[in-house]
Amino acid sequence: MNKQQLFDQIKIKKSFLCVGLDTDIQKIPEFLTADNNDSIFSFNKAIVDATADYCVAYKPNLAFYESLGLEGWQALEKTVDYIREKYPEQFIIADAKRGDIGNTSSMYARTFFSTMDFDAVTVAPYMGEDSVTPFLSYENKWVILLALTSNKGAFDFQFTEDAQTGEQLFEKVLKTSQQWASTDNLMYVVGATRADMLLEVRKLVPDHFLLVPGVGAQGGSLQEVAKYGMNESCGLLVNSSRQIIYASSGKDFAEAAQAEAKRVQQEMEVLLKEGRLI
Amino acid sequence: MNKQQLFDQIKIKKSFLCVGLDTDIQKIPEFLTADNNDSIFSFNKAIVDATADYCVAYKPNLAFYESLGLEGWQALEKTVDYIREKYPEQFIIADAKRGDIGNTSSMYARTFFSTMDFDAVTVAPYMGEDSVTPFLSYENKWVILLALTSNKGAFDFQFTEDAQTGEQLFEKVLKTSQQWASTDNLMYVVGATRADMLLEVRKLVPDHFLLVPGVGAQGGSLQEVAKYGMNESCGLLVNSSRQIIYASSGKDFAEAAQAEAKRVQQEMEVLLKEGRLI
Repeated sequence: MNKQQLFDQIKIKKSFLCVGLDTDIQKIPEFLTADNNDSIFSFNKAIVDATADYCVAYKPNLAFYESLGLEGWQALEKTVDYIREKYPEQFIIADAKRGDIGNTSSMYARTFFSTMDFDAVTVAPYMGEDSVTPFLSYENKWVILLALTSNKGAFDFQFTEDAQTGEQLFEKVLKTSQQWASTDNLMYVVGATRADMLLEVRKLVPDHFLLVPGVGAQGGSLQEVAKYGMNESCGLLVNSSRQIIYASSGKDFAEAAQAEAKRVQQEMEVLLKEGRLI
Repeated sequence: MNKQQLFDQIKIKKSFLCVGLDTDIQKIPEFLTADNNDSIFSFNKAIVDATADYCVAYKPNLAFYESLGLEGWQALEKTVDYIREKYPEQFIIADAKRGDIGNTSSMYARTFFSTMDFDAVTVAPYMGEDSVTPFLSYENKWVILLALTSNKGAFDFQFTEDAQTGEQLFEKVLKTSQQWASTDNLMYVVGATRADMLLEVRKLVPDHFLLVPGVGAQGGSLQEVAKYGMNESCGLLVNSSRQIIYASSGKDFAEAAQAEAKRVQQEMEVLLKEGRLI
């Protein structure tokens, strides 16, 4: 999927919602785990079926699957296959925060773009260009590079001011990495818990898509994200995980997830109209 | 395993070698893959049995296993179980370069320290303290934090000079992260391709263990690493992957790996004696 196709989906769905599949075996409804060996996939399938009309992307968080070992990995593969087959218009993100020396990043790229059929993978920038570019050699596949994250620890290193240029580290990441790829295969993670920072980010990357976590459970405001971050191709994928997938822990978990996804989609529809994008 | 126990092993084995299990299905001897569904594990088992006398640590590189999907994950679990059971004195490192917001890092910690029984995991520092500390809540388990890596891309961000302190980013990572943990559960990745930088690193972390990749295929010199990096507990785990595990692609691959591991161990024995550690 390229940038235009992603924007087209946003206009069709009137939504720039990404649903985070942080599926935790300890949080999914008990009745699902009671007599079901495949409860992670069953949960994901129900969530996806309930929310697919209201979002344009899904983002499985790899840690939640890996922590279950083989069983988790199997549930992840099944989930990706299911979305790809039943909802081919969805953009599927491996939230994996990978990045290593060239020959190793090539292997991670194979994992997510060949062994599994994700559209994008989140990558950490610390190891620089040759840790990122191997992911860019697959057609229509994306790197989503960490720039400014939504956690407290973001303040430890990401705001380090470069003595030579006066840029903060996250700005240097944005500026440097643009040379490695295009707006058709590179986007950035920018946390919503500091939505006004999106103004600074947009000065450096006016045309790139941004993946924005931190709306919902982490406290960010959707209105502020749209105000400071929306561009003429929308340029935003806003992720919500826990607030949607754990909207209810009862038998109605899928309906509750649907209601929450719909609520967010309707907010997004207003914002897209205000931005004259639909 | 704590720092003293690791040093004890180094003295017993007269070696500070870590064997990197970057096991690539396309590079292992053909006769192993011909009629064997379990060829990755078979290869690893043979390599481990051949080299265990000459090294103190094994470091499976997660990317190589993940890229094979379920089969790869299974081979990884079997490899870790095998080493743990047959060679309980070995220090087992998940070279995974993980790191995410707190609740996600907790899941990764569960993956490597509970679902599987690794001793340590490599972690990327970009997301700061709360992305690292969840790995530190397991007793006798270690974080190996990226500081200065051995690849060309290291120059993109790791040498950024902090306008406030004059420190370079990797120095800031070393200095800041020391506050999060002790020398008994935190070590650092410092690449051998710039061995003289170990002098600078040792000024900041005189007592920590360093995991040093880049000796061998990547061109670093073992003598220089020891000269600049060795401390009174040795303080070094030097990794070699390709040069050992692919020493031969024939039927003698295990013997060739053993000969190469033994050659490195003998060099290390000399260096340990020169350092008056044995």
